[in-house]
Amino acid sequence: MSAAVRAWIVASGDELVQGRGLDTNSAWLARELGELGVETRRMLVIGDDEAGLRALAEQAGRELELLVVTGGLGPTLDDVTRAALAAAAGVELVEDAGALATLREWLAARGRPFSESNRRQAFLPRGAELLPNAVGTAPGFLLRCAGALVAALPGPPREMQRMFTDELRPRLERALPPRPARELARFYLFGLPESNFADRCGDWMARDADPLLGVTAHSGVLSAQLASADAARLAARADEFRERFGEWIFSEKSGDQARVLADLLLERGITVATAESCTGGLLAQRLTQFPGISAVFGWGFVSYANAAKQDLLGVDPALLEEHGAVSLPVAEAMARGAAQRSGARLSIAITGIAGPEGGTPEKPVGLVCFATCLDGVLQSTERRFVVRGRDLIREFAAQTALDLARRRLLD
Amino acid sequence: MSAAVRAWIVASGDELVQGRGLDTNSAWLARELGELGVETRRMLVIGDDEAGLRALAEQAGRELELLVVTGGLGPTLDDVTRAALAAAAGVELVEDAGALATLREWLAARGRPFSESNRRQAFLPRGAELLPNAVGTAPGFLLRCAGALVAALPGPPREMQRMFTDELRPRLERALPPRPARELARFYLFGLPESNFADRCGDWMARDADPLLGVTAHSGVLSAQLASADAARLAARADEFRERFGEWIFSEKSGDQARVLADLLLERGITVATAESCTGGLLAQRLTQFPGISAVFGWGFVSYANAAKQDLLGVDPALLEEHGAVSLPVAEAMARGAAQRSGARLSIAITGIAGPEGGTPEKPVGLVCFATCLDGVLQSTERRFVVRGRDLIREFAAQTALDLARRRLLD
Repeated sequence: MSAAVRAWIVASGDELVQGRGLDTNSAWLARELGELGVETRRMLVIGDDEAGLRALAEQAGRELELLVVTGGLGPTLDDVTRAALAAAAGVELVEDAGALATLREWLAARGRPFSESNRRQAFLPRGAELLPNAVGTAPGFLLRCAGALVAALPGPPREMQRMFTDELRPRLERALPPRPARELARFYLFGLPESNFADRCGDWMARDADPLLGVTAHSGVLSAQLASADAARLAARADEFRERFGEWIFSEKSGDQARVLADLLLERGITVATAESCTGGLLAQRLTQFPGISAVFGWGFVSYANAAKQDLLGVDPALLEEHGAVSLPVAEAMARGAAQRSGARLSIAITGIAGPEGGTPEKPVGLVCFATCLDGVLQSTERRFVVRGRDLIREFAAQTALDLARRRLLD
Repeated sequence: MSAAVRAWIVASGDELVQGRGLDTNSAWLARELGELGVETRRMLVIGDDEAGLRALAEQAGRELELLVVTGGLGPTLDDVTRAALAAAAGVELVEDAGALATLREWLAARGRPFSESNRRQAFLPRGAELLPNAVGTAPGFLLRCAGALVAALPGPPREMQRMFTDELRPRLERALPPRPARELARFYLFGLPESNFADRCGDWMARDADPLLGVTAHSGVLSAQLASADAARLAARADEFRERFGEWIFSEKSGDQARVLADLLLERGITVATAESCTGGLLAQRLTQFPGISAVFGWGFVSYANAAKQDLLGVDPALLEEHGAVSLPVAEAMARGAAQRSGARLSIAITGIAGPEGGTPEKPVGLVCFATCLDGVLQSTERRFVVRGRDLIREFAAQTALDLARRRLLD
């Protein structure tokens, strides 16, 4: 699919190219730019390399329509973006009096001292348009290098996102050609391995298929995207997709199973409590990300020790003795106890072996038992995760618990 | 600092260049390659773009010593790495009988059907050396393109990391020139804003300083790295650094405050319990990441609702009435209750306003109260976080709690 506007996204910083920090800005920008009809062709990470960034900007000016650079606008000597882009545009850096005044006020209002290092942040390439920073010290800017618009945004994600949304996006919408129509449909699935999905897709995933179908897998969740310039074609394929994959599709809006469950609970006013052993609070933490969740969530139990299962959740020691902590009877007792203790209509319990130690031939690492209690009625099930590693097992356990709870509510 | 071996790292996949998935492989590889004396000059993300990947590999063959590609080795039609690298090396793809047999066995052993899609994964560029995949279906491979060694690894992080560690790293150690000596010292700090750190560094952070000093900030933790080819020079600067920043340095080994606290607790055999409101399980989840933590952690309370604070932790309703849930007296009562209920020697309590709603002029969003109880003695403090956003406030709250707990133990 060709787009009128091609972009590169560059993340600048030694810590990034050495792997000490992770670039999340480029992925966020690629999604946002996609909404504007911009096709990101490349993402690049370079170090605090003024000459390298200058060369990339010059190349972008020759080959593309848009270059977005994040990072390198900080107050320290290794922040090279201002100088590199000014050189690429063939202009010098000049101190912007307005930027300097804003910077002083911003720091003063927060009771933070104005350090001379901050002064560097008020220099901009001559002729660049300043992009104000509402939540940090570094202003961004916009300028032309040959055939490309070049935007410089701060590195800290919150500052970058705010500046993009408030300042850069509106300017791009005005400056870019109208976007070619491109319809999208997204589906989020859980419980189906990627290679089985691929088999069931047949030729829907061919490189030249229309609609084009792409899929990615993360923590057991498959995110599928159908895209076409033809809305009717897309709608027809989307219907076929729903029919073929309905058993596993949990949302067409969000790949976050915690979000989907939270929305369902809030919509229906169903209170929920969590009782976790091996996941150690991961499930509760996921649910409490969402503002307003206190309307349905008030009690989370992390009964990591058997004594805690007994004391907090009323699990009968005889059950622990006979079946062990990782068993369906104990999962059910945890769910029942959490529901009774909290008064919640729905409770979700997880008990398993996250490893790497603790496994036996009968109960290997990766065995996790789940129980839900809804209006007093218990259901339980187990999984034997073949993914490797404590982190992944905990993650898959939390995802599975969210999936089971949602299915329970939709039954 | 020049290194004998220059590398690019490429992550391949439409979902990555469109921002639907996040590339964490490149950062991990850059760190690992750094240990081998390899300098990563660029990281690039491209789509399922066979021609583009071929061109990058050809360019790498002309300009560098090493190219590592992750992704695009899956079973679907959009996995283009095998074909792209074979074309760059000027060879055809051939089916490897050993790889095919291994693949069939691997899937059969896990009770998964062999799909015809999987067969694609047994094709390799003629002459390439196969890198076995111990934890997934796609073998990787190693081949030469002109002057560069080119390695292809799978996209899923766990598979990629295992293959790098077991298969690629030993081969690189044999194939690459001996690494130039480069001494490193790392320091991890909490509680000092980055710009204040920069001011206190003076010219230590100049681009041409020796030792070279770099710093990155994440969730309030500053990760500082000193590097020099001269060990004595490095040791002297490291001593100066400790003297200047000792008040904020919490580790020279790990930037994970949960790891550092867990190690301290395990080493000293001090049991811990957590009582969380606004962080919703985040603190407990962080501590339980570590195998063996059950020796010191058994009880985590997520008392999100006031009723839960009263019932689970014995917080006096009169305190809640008089001071409100977000107050030092309530934080202290939560910590005391958690310690008494669990029998843990140390308890950590967090209660705050994560927002975006819930703030008032006296108690704004970002206000978080903390308490620790150690052998029956309570201490409490509050912070007013100026970072914006529910996620960041929760993150900073968890980091602060870990920091306070560690300082409590080290007093």
